[in-house]
Amino acid sequence: MTNDFYAIIPAGGAGTRLWPLSRQSQPKFLADLTGAGSSLLQQAVTRLQPLTANRVMVVTGQAHIEAVSRQLPQLNITDFVVEPSGRDSMAAIGLAAAILEKRHGDIVVGSFAADHIIIDEEAFQTAVTSAIEAAKNNYVTTIGIMPTAPNTGFGYIHAGNQLPLTTASPVYQVTEFLEKPNQETAEKYFASGEYRWNAGMFVARARVLLDVLSRFEPELYAGIMKLAQAWDTPTQAEAMDMTWSLLKKIAIDHAIAEPLAREGQVAVVPVSMGWSDVGDYNSLAEVISSSDQVAMGGVQYPVFRKDSPNSLVYTHSKPVVVLGVPEAVVVETETAIFVTTKDQAQNVKDVVNELPETLEYLR
Amino acid sequence: MTNDFYAIIPAGGAGTRLWPLSRQSQPKFLADLTGAGSSLLQQAVTRLQPLTANRVMVVTGQAHIEAVSRQLPQLNITDFVVEPSGRDSMAAIGLAAAILEKRHGDIVVGSFAADHIIIDEEAFQTAVTSAIEAAKNNYVTTIGIMPTAPNTGFGYIHAGNQLPLTTASPVYQVTEFLEKPNQETAEKYFASGEYRWNAGMFVARARVLLDVLSRFEPELYAGIMKLAQAWDTPTQAEAMDMTWSLLKKIAIDHAIAEPLAREGQVAVVPVSMGWSDVGDYNSLAEVISSSDQVAMGGVQYPVFRKDSPNSLVYTHSKPVVVLGVPEAVVVETETAIFVTTKDQAQNVKDVVNELPETLEYLR
Repeated sequence: MTNDFYAIIPAGGAGTRLWPLSRQSQPKFLADLTGAGSSLLQQAVTRLQPLTANRVMVVTGQAHIEAVSRQLPQLNITDFVVEPSGRDSMAAIGLAAAILEKRHGDIVVGSFAADHIIIDEEAFQTAVTSAIEAAKNNYVTTIGIMPTAPNTGFGYIHAGNQLPLTTASPVYQVTEFLEKPNQETAEKYFASGEYRWNAGMFVARARVLLDVLSRFEPELYAGIMKLAQAWDTPTQAEAMDMTWSLLKKIAIDHAIAEPLAREGQVAVVPVSMGWSDVGDYNSLAEVISSSDQVAMGGVQYPVFRKDSPNSLVYTHSKPVVVLGVPEAVVVETETAIFVTTKDQAQNVKDVVNELPETLEYLR
Repeated sequence: MTNDFYAIIPAGGAGTRLWPLSRQSQPKFLADLTGAGSSLLQQAVTRLQPLTANRVMVVTGQAHIEAVSRQLPQLNITDFVVEPSGRDSMAAIGLAAAILEKRHGDIVVGSFAADHIIIDEEAFQTAVTSAIEAAKNNYVTTIGIMPTAPNTGFGYIHAGNQLPLTTASPVYQVTEFLEKPNQETAEKYFASGEYRWNAGMFVARARVLLDVLSRFEPELYAGIMKLAQAWDTPTQAEAMDMTWSLLKKIAIDHAIAEPLAREGQVAVVPVSMGWSDVGDYNSLAEVISSSDQVAMGGVQYPVFRKDSPNSLVYTHSKPVVVLGVPEAVVVETETAIFVTTKDQAQNVKDVVNELPETLEYLR
């Protein structure tokens, strides 16, 4: 039985380090970063389809609900939660879980980012299926990415003993969640083979998730349950107006995963699946290195590179030629042309912040 | 009396080192490289206007006559010579001089490139006026550019004694024309202060020019005079068909200027006027460094550069942002986007030659 599984997809955050592919008015989850003809959000929903048959709840902000719902015509209006303001991931996921529990009873929910890239969808589905089984055994279960490098940009999950569960993928007890490490520590984690990247994917019974929340964050739990009670009733809008902005801003990792791991109640399913959070041009280039030339949801124009190894080119309206710029990043969108190199990946958000007044509309 | 002065403008040569600003179908003389709203050819004609009042003859190829005549509506059909094929500068200038002599008698002609940039037009006009005076004294007179650096990309003119002429600018006897030097020699030339860059501008009485040609290249002279005889008659087209392709391919420097200098009959007017032959992106950047952002004959879009000193940006349809690419060259034209750096200036023509089949139309 997997028909009691529902996916929750929080869709927020602009990701300006991928400007101009991603910007405030078109955050990266709405963008077709891989040239697949679909946005990262659409890919997230499609990738879950074999497990959910569109039993999906998308949580997004007022600014993006129109674009989000237009991109997901297969969903119903009741499959969206519109946040009047961002209250971080615990409020978003908690409210979605509470609404789904109210509607459907004892179900398993899983939260998945709207703006990640996953190449091997089958590996993803197998891992999630295993996580669902672990969740039915009352574990809050996370999907842990097998590190491919000693990356300092991610939090890590320390995997302990394997759990005695009959699942397609082995499931381990989580001993600890760890913050983004420094380079030395990252090297140690990587060498030991015991650590996984935290991709922020959590699978749990809705009731388990909410019970844990009530123990660690009782006020937030109370606020969420109040909202869930009003949901699907005439007072829903009023309740959101009154209560949402008062909810504590906290990430699900801090609210639940970390304290619960200390009690031995968090599990992890390790997986290698060509995953990227596409946080910047470096990580974007890693996952699309085989093509490294992309047309965002449209016509692909020829690109010619000479003496420009490892360069990344996005075209929009015309061919691009790059000469003698190794690691170049050349992005043409409908509204702008951006030229940089991969070693500037961390500075992209600065350039966006510093855009002159005449270019502020490009943010 | 300067009303007996006629300008000859040979307009040929693609200049693919400035691709895609300059390409076979749109050579650089047809392009607005400075964002002035006019092409280099139009600027060449306008700059001569105070001296010629449109007494101009443009020599160009079959492929470009339509665009050239469209850009110069102030000229008449008889002000153009259409070359069935390129026969180098002596044939082009010689034929134009012979036609002008046939039409107007004893006149002074001056040949000027169609694809150079000159910032100080007044200095140019003063120099040409002085050259015209020297020409009336039967000198073949060249305009010699005061070097601003020990450049190895130009031929040099060695200036000897000042000539006893009453002219606005001093005029010197040319002792020698010198080929493009190596770096060491260029440094010596530059340090001595006696050398000028050869910009290929020659001013002479048409009859002097043709007499000199008849001495040094009698066959070429004969061919040119045969064509001039048929010009403006019903047999003009037939004569061109029969004779043009047989003319010797030789540059005016080799045909006339160098041997005549050995006889002491060439003069030079030195001038500083912000001159560039815009042979590549390096030299283009030198003359437009004050703005270093150009819109080719159209709307200029905002450009923002961070950590990209000395970068050069051409926009066509949208804003450009450059991050962390010093000496970047970013060119957007109607048909392509080109990204390189100035140190690749000499390799641009290679990339054009190597364009894949799908992009050959961009050449």
